[in-house]
Amino acid sequence: MKKEVCIILGSISDKAVMMKAFALLDKFGIGYDKQIISAHRALDYLCEYVESRADRGVKVIIAAAGGAAALPGVIAAKTVLPVIGVPVKSSHLNGIDSLLSVVQMPTGVPVATVAINGAANAALLAVEILALSNPELARKLQIYKEEIKKASLKSGEKL
Amino acid sequence: MKKEVCIILGSISDKAVMMKAFALLDKFGIGYDKQIISAHRALDYLCEYVESRADRGVKVIIAAAGGAAALPGVIAAKTVLPVIGVPVKSSHLNGIDSLLSVVQMPTGVPVATVAINGAANAALLAVEILALSNPELARKLQIYKEEIKKASLKSGEKL
Amino acid sequence: MKKEVCIILGSISDKAVMMKAFALLDKFGIGYDKQIISAHRALDYLCEYVESRADRGVKVIIAAAGGAAALPGVIAAKTVLPVIGVPVKSSHLNGIDSLLSVVQMPTGVPVATVAINGAANAALLAVEILALSNPELARKLQIYKEEIKKASLKSGEKL
Amino acid sequence: MKKEVCIILGSISDKAVMMKAFALLDKFGIGYDKQIISAHRALDYLCEYVESRADRGVKVIIAAAGGAAALPGVIAAKTVLPVIGVPVKSSHLNGIDSLLSVVQMPTGVPVATVAINGAANAALLAVEILALSNPELARKLQIYKEEIKKASLKSGEKL
Amino acid sequence: MKKEVCIILGSISDKAVMMKAFALLDKFGIGYDKQIISAHRALDYLCEYVESRADRGVKVIIAAAGGAAALPGVIAAKTVLPVIGVPVKSSHLNGIDSLLSVVQMPTGVPVATVAINGAANAALLAVEILALSNPELARKLQIYKEEIKKASLKSGEKL
Amino acid sequence: MKKEVCIILGSISDKAVMMKAFALLDKFGIGYDKQIISAHRALDYLCEYVESRADRGVKVIIAAAGGAAALPGVIAAKTVLPVIGVPVKSSHLNGIDSLLSVVQMPTGVPVATVAINGAANAALLAVEILALSNPELARKLQIYKEEIKKASLKSGEKL
Amino acid sequence: MKKEVCIILGSISDKAVMMKAFALLDKFGIGYDKQIISAHRALDYLCEYVESRADRGVKVIIAAAGGAAALPGVIAAKTVLPVIGVPVKSSHLNGIDSLLSVVQMPTGVPVATVAINGAANAALLAVEILALSNPELARKLQIYKEEIKKASLKSGEKL
Amino acid sequence: MKKEVCIILGSISDKAVMMKAFALLDKFGIGYDKQIISAHRALDYLCEYVESRADRGVKVIIAAAGGAAALPGVIAAKTVLPVIGVPVKSSHLNGIDSLLSVVQMPTGVPVATVAINGAANAALLAVEILALSNPELARKLQIYKEEIKKASLKSGEKL
Repeated sequence: MKKEVCIILGSISDKAVMMKAFALLDKFGIGYDKQIISAHRALDYLCEYVESRADRGVKVIIAAAGGAAALPGVIAAKTVLPVIGVPVKSSHLNGIDSLLSVVQMPTGVPVATVAINGAANAALLAVEILALSNPELARKLQIYKEEIKKASLKSGEKL
Repeated sequence: MKKEVCIILGSISDKAVMMKAFALLDKFGIGYDKQIISAHRALDYLCEYVESRADRGVKVIIAAAGGAAALPGVIAAKTVLPVIGVPVKSSHLNGIDSLLSVVQMPTGVPVATVAINGAANAALLAVEILALSNPELARKLQIYKEEIKKASLKSGEKL
Repeated sequence: MKKEVCIILGSISDKAVMMKAFALLDKFGIGYDKQIISAHRALDYLCEYVESRADRGVKVIIAAAGGAAALPGVIAAKTVLPVIGVPVKSSHLNGIDSLLSVVQMPTGVPVATVAINGAANAALLAVEILALSNPELARKLQIYKEEIKKASLKSGEKL
Repeated sequence: MKKEVCIILGSISDKAVMMKAFALLDKFGIGYDKQIISAHRALDYLCEYVESRADRGVKVIIAAAGGAAALPGVIAAKTVLPVIGVPVKSSHLNGIDSLLSVVQMPTGVPVATVAINGAANAALLAVEILALSNPELARKLQIYKEEIKKASLKSGEKL
Repeated sequence: MKKEVCIILGSISDKAVMMKAFALLDKFGIGYDKQIISAHRALDYLCEYVESRADRGVKVIIAAAGGAAALPGVIAAKTVLPVIGVPVKSSHLNGIDSLLSVVQMPTGVPVATVAINGAANAALLAVEILALSNPELARKLQIYKEEIKKASLKSGEKL
Repeated sequence: MKKEVCIILGSISDKAVMMKAFALLDKFGIGYDKQIISAHRALDYLCEYVESRADRGVKVIIAAAGGAAALPGVIAAKTVLPVIGVPVKSSHLNGIDSLLSVVQMPTGVPVATVAINGAANAALLAVEILALSNPELARKLQIYKEEIKKASLKSGEKL
Repeated sequence: MKKEVCIILGSISDKAVMMKAFALLDKFGIGYDKQIISAHRALDYLCEYVESRADRGVKVIIAAAGGAAALPGVIAAKTVLPVIGVPVKSSHLNGIDSLLSVVQMPTGVPVATVAINGAANAALLAVEILALSNPELARKLQIYKEEIKKASLKSGEKL
Repeated sequence: MKKEVCIILGSISDKAVMMKAFALLDKFGIGYDKQIISAHRALDYLCEYVESRADRGVKVIIAAAGGAAALPGVIAAKTVLPVIGVPVKSSHLNGIDSLLSVVQMPTGVPVATVAINGAANAALLAVEILALSNPELARKLQIYKEEIKKASLKSGEKL
């Protein structure tokens, strides 16, 4: 399967959060690569890795990190592919540090930021981007939207 | 010119901030539509408007709003197109209210959030998304990236 | 029983918090409707639903949501009935995101916001509003106020 | 003219902010009383004043204060009328202190809180409450809602 | 025993925190009165109670409250005795709401604020104030200071 | 004149804020000493200075500082006199850093904290403490309280 | 073994956090002294202790404290040795009070601040400083950097 | 002159803030290099540049950046020299984003963080580090410390 999405985690501790991104891409049948590459501990390897992605057909990169979360921004510095950032809840400041480190990027180097621990939405955003040139995927998204609507309304029965 | 991007402002007061998004799309030769439609003051019109965009070939929607900034999320509720949210600096809380209102979306309805007042980056993110199926645009992005690198390094002469 | 209050939850996860609102309205003998309708997952249904409330004699709408909590504001966009917003404590930011998303509304579309998880007070505010044209209810409110005063003072015995 | 609304300011420094509340009530033809009564500097007078309001036909009280903004809550302690709180932007903390002091009320004593400096919305909320037993006012609210929608959309011409 | 200190809690839920204040006053042999009187639920009784304290020889009032913590400020409004405020950790915002509600008092009505949940220090501050006219107490304070110094240094053995 | 109050500023930049404390003590006829002694730049001198105060009849120390505002706490470490801390608004974080540095003291070493830039209230708190053993001063405080009440109510004429 | 680093904890409660600093210095074979000396409870002893360090060959001081964390700054006031501050997570505000109290130092008295609970990094920073005049240590640091890179990449296998 | 310090700015807009670092190093007669190299706009060049510093005798690197301030951390990822980070006040969030992005580094990659806009202290910290192997510099630091003490005390005359 072609791997159009690449997911990079800053640390193994981000895995629990990012499982939802894996699950959502699986659900939509999107091929993806997943790696742990810390921007602060393995910067050179990260730079090489990101550079080589475009050649391999990757179209969207999702990056998850917590605390002084430089990972998504550093990836964005190395590519013109859209980079989606997931600020991971941090141990001490509830992820507000992660969020600000990911979203407050300088002009010229955007990171598409989702909610704190918003792994599923990061994957969904990637699907929305891929669907622009994939009508089948666009249809699946419409169905998904309909499903979550129904699930939401149906949950009202439990009130 | 085909209008692949649609920019919606919550209020005329967001115009000064969003000029940088217009300028950046102009620079890349991207056609775009721009509108002021408040989610809170003109919700029905907003719903109709967003629904009709996909049919007209719009691929990315950029939405800018401040305070209890529901606009990007409400647009995302109405479309499966990627929605980019610009939290606009608010009068009283420096835009932290805008940022949290835009970025903390529930699962199923992502908004690709950029920095507070990050209008240029919102436009750039749209360009990155469009460039996935437009090699010419991808080349322009590479050149732009080279340009801002040079400009950044050259600014060092003023030190 | 006439249903003068309508309570809308953004998600089933808000139920535990909102039980206190149900209990308080029950205590005052106020009829109410309760629904789960997500502003982001079921926007069209929400719009229709809110539009139809005034015709059915609803006088006050209570809306509870967390995170990027657009629900109360979107409801307020669709009605001239008083809308009371309950910012629900969110998983990561303790509800400060919910609070700001609910309270920082633009001019023209007010939401009467209560404390984070302030479900009982939302219901009580609804009762206060209904009591303006219902002297019996006003009397009950006076008695309730007297009761909580006594309970508060009596709790001092446990010191 | 019957005075159905009573507006209390904690300090003369809140006047500039509250002018918008006066203007909005004037626009809707609502009679109102306005006073400066500090909860911290004139507590006894405040207590007497609030107690006497219900007898005079006041239906809604609007209270504006900044910093450790006890005023709306203290008024709510003295009445079963709906109390609307306006957190006024403070000199040093941008009004986040005012907002939290006004909105985080304990169970049993609600304050309907609007945005920081949200004077116009406080007045509008009062109008919405009065309109529940005044169909003419309800009609005016519908027209107002239509007007702000048109003004919002029309402002798009200036883009 | 003469009761020179009066401790007022806003709610029974503040008891666990305030036990440390009771213990510290006991340790210094200071007589004190303790009460639960909510500013929002029993305002009239609070006003009467505070007014009567000076006549009974109370010299310092300690008040503990959480959330929109009006209690210390309302007491300060009713007396020229020094009022010490203890912001109690709140359920949702960690006590930052309590702290700002207690400390940000307007000119003319000071509250001597201690740390969030700083019950022991509130009592100690009261002792320091009483010691100004009680040399025996001043001596005890010097000994206490020496004790905590020794305990602090001695704890180093556990490193 | 006996100097019962000692005011210490961390920096000359705190002078503008503290003028209100000087004025208030002058108004009440309280003698006071004023000094600039930085805890971080002149620690030894500060220690000696504080130690010598009790001998000279000082009863209350007021300390004002901004940023990492250690001054009030360090003074409290050196004396059993009541120490009142004024968190001064800082250049970058609006004084929230000053406030937390002053108020969040560990058990055993209280600082009586007033509002950000609350210089007048710091002085007033000192007066309240001195008035406990000075009935003339207590009377003046009652009159002052009456004056600010009248001024507050009178300002209503300007509405 | 020569003790080139001195670690001072404000309280025994900081021990659990600081174990990581001890472990890291042990790993690098750096001799160090460890003490509990509270700035607020044992100021005089702290001053003497810090003064005597330079004579004993200490080159770097690490100080850990929480809440109104004056310790690192007070040490910096007493020495021209580099002082590294560890803001310890506090009970109520997650360590944001500790962080601001440690980092926001006035000009002339720097504290090298690391992350909240960043004990290992404080030790590592000390090693980096010592390595400037110790090539063997510099080599060890390079190896350590290589190790954490490998560990980080290797953890990817667990994805 | 040997260049023992290297100062890197993320953007020309940081120059005004960093002038104080230049001035302080000049005052102490320390040679330094200064550059503008954005981590996000010129990452490859930054990596090469940092790698080459150790060979040229640089001992300390100072990095200043605002917003999502990845610069100091990225430099720290590339070197075992001590890296000092200056969080620069940002346009919208007062530098709290800069501070958290700089200080909250993961274990293994420390950044010695100073106050928001703390340029002079960053330089002073560098001097303290260099002084460890330069007794002449250590003497100058003692004199400087004496000077700022005198200046601080002398400023008291202006009270």
